[in-house]
Amino acid sequence: MSLKFEILKTNGKSRRGKLYTKHGVVNTPAFMPVGTCGTVKAMMPESVAATGAEILLGNTYHLMLRPGADLVEKMGGLHQFMNWNKPILTDSGGFQVMSLNSLRKLKEEGVTFKSHVDGKTYFLSPEESVRIQHKLDSNITMCLDECTPFPATYDEAKKSMQMSMRWAKRCKEAFVEREGYGLFGIQQGSVFQDLRQESAEKLKEIGFDGYAIGGLAVGEGQEKMFEMLDTAPQMFPADKPRYLMGVGRPDDIVGGVLRGVDMFDCVMPTRSGRTAQAFTRFGVINIRNARHREDPRPLEEGCDCPLCTHYSRAYLHHLQKANEILAVMLLTWHNIRYYQRLMQGLRTALETDTLEIFVKDFYANQNKGDIKEL
Amino acid sequence: MSLKFEILKTNGKSRRGKLYTKHGVVNTPAFMPVGTCGTVKAMMPESVAATGAEILLGNTYHLMLRPGADLVEKMGGLHQFMNWNKPILTDSGGFQVMSLNSLRKLKEEGVTFKSHVDGKTYFLSPEESVRIQHKLDSNITMCLDECTPFPATYDEAKKSMQMSMRWAKRCKEAFVEREGYGLFGIQQGSVFQDLRQESAEKLKEIGFDGYAIGGLAVGEGQEKMFEMLDTAPQMFPADKPRYLMGVGRPDDIVGGVLRGVDMFDCVMPTRSGRTAQAFTRFGVINIRNARHREDPRPLEEGCDCPLCTHYSRAYLHHLQKANEILAVMLLTWHNIRYYQRLMQGLRTALETDTLEIFVKDFYANQNKGDIKEL
Repeated sequence: MSLKFEILKTNGKSRRGKLYTKHGVVNTPAFMPVGTCGTVKAMMPESVAATGAEILLGNTYHLMLRPGADLVEKMGGLHQFMNWNKPILTDSGGFQVMSLNSLRKLKEEGVTFKSHVDGKTYFLSPEESVRIQHKLDSNITMCLDECTPFPATYDEAKKSMQMSMRWAKRCKEAFVEREGYGLFGIQQGSVFQDLRQESAEKLKEIGFDGYAIGGLAVGEGQEKMFEMLDTAPQMFPADKPRYLMGVGRPDDIVGGVLRGVDMFDCVMPTRSGRTAQAFTRFGVINIRNARHREDPRPLEEGCDCPLCTHYSRAYLHHLQKANEILAVMLLTWHNIRYYQRLMQGLRTALETDTLEIFVKDFYANQNKGDIKEL
Repeated sequence: MSLKFEILKTNGKSRRGKLYTKHGVVNTPAFMPVGTCGTVKAMMPESVAATGAEILLGNTYHLMLRPGADLVEKMGGLHQFMNWNKPILTDSGGFQVMSLNSLRKLKEEGVTFKSHVDGKTYFLSPEESVRIQHKLDSNITMCLDECTPFPATYDEAKKSMQMSMRWAKRCKEAFVEREGYGLFGIQQGSVFQDLRQESAEKLKEIGFDGYAIGGLAVGEGQEKMFEMLDTAPQMFPADKPRYLMGVGRPDDIVGGVLRGVDMFDCVMPTRSGRTAQAFTRFGVINIRNARHREDPRPLEEGCDCPLCTHYSRAYLHHLQKANEILAVMLLTWHNIRYYQRLMQGLRTALETDTLEIFVKDFYANQNKGDIKEL
């Protein structure tokens, strides 16, 4: 196969693995920061790497519209264009076309839509999505699918999933195999277990380098999501990586790892970095709160990011109030570092057979809440 | 004296010096990036230091309003608050009160104004300005003065300058001398040479650690400014640093150094970093221009900043069009680095008696304009 995946250790359903790509190794369970427009917002790529991130997610929809896949290809691919020489996974563009674009038209052949950048009409088919991701030089190409909206009736979910499976086959046929590059299929089926099973069977029949669980974290709630995840990951071959798309908050990720998921992505740490929300081991903190105004303590004691090492909560609060870009830079860095520390913690716990203790501590700390006001 | 200044070499009116402060040495001629609200916008302080900057300018007006001088003092002073352990010069707040605040009332005693942050009324006197700068732990305190608006009649300029000189005396009396800290007086007099001479005499009589030339670059034009600078710096003692406030563009700085100025500050490199304007040795470039869209070349060949080392013009153009924060981060870094390289070039030229050649090359390159479109 084009992407080698190795499982070093398991604990219950959880797995500690290594995914080998042309641009380097990804230790799993892994969290992928999102670099929508060819940049992880407010971060230098060397800073993203310094957080421990080993793979980024790029958005095909945004990049195809601006600057365009041809330009990125001409500039040597996305890695070179954005100065990130580690692995990159790209989504198919399908989710954004459906969620961000109100002028789209979905047919069996593909989806037609208008660009928000210049008003031009685009056509995204399974083949075109794969072609674009090839031009971007993405290490992991995602199949174009329809992310079934929630809620959906059983029949809607079935119809949508079955089209996605036909698209998955077309993606596989369009994909050019290369050493160190791979193609992932995406399971749909909404919250219906038999549809998820049917989807998994179809994907396995086609055969992919990895399997993604799509159509979750779209409004069904954590309980329902975990219910689906109680069985979904195990519907796929044990020797392939499993990727839960667009998830999530720290406790979603811990829950996902416990259920056998290997890869995650979410805008949560980066978006929160722009809205004064900080992730810490004692839960989420809003740094604009007046209680931080004169607090000389670091955001999170023991965190090794630049924000927690060199600055006070008072300073970060000041920067936020003054709408300074540095507030976004420092908090984004911290949040990504928090996520990477969480993943490192999970990986180490798996390696040392201490996952149960790690997870217990994680929940105990999250429930504690922020340190007392001075 | 509280601030030691050493002149290593001279060439005509130009001087190569070293200014010793509690927080380190400043090699002159020096350019000070502006950190208005306790941050050089869009830059980590370690990145500012990496550009070669040895001293920052902080704005008393902004900091007194938010987060407040008492808070900064409580947090260990501005150096510790903003994680910059090199020298800091603060302005007096006077210029911003007069230029940014429409609700101010100027009297002999001082100036009353309302905060744009919370609507509270503040009173800034010479004594209060010095006290605030002390709380900020500023290495170089600037006297409160009235920056005479341009144009001004001779009588207006005289009256304004004479009040500033009375204020300068009050500042001197209020200033607490400490080793490694100093107080600079500010010359006014608009574009009238005899008023500038009178101002200089009064300042020398009071006695300061350094002398600033104020009230220029306020609309009089470069020719008039240079005419003033043909004599103003030499009105001050040769063994004290001379600081031209709020200047300027690269060619203003070269002209200032040739006329005997040692220190400069300006928002130009940082503000331009937020408006897609790049300073290069071949002049100013607007990176939003369509000609850069597919240009794989660095912004400035030979520049060692991260932008020029790792990215193409095409990428920077893309980031700018997408309004990505990274565009501001990279371009601000480049612009500050450009200014610091210019200062390093001037210092080396002074050390090696090659100033004339350096200046000739500088103008020749600036006039060349950007490299040819591909």
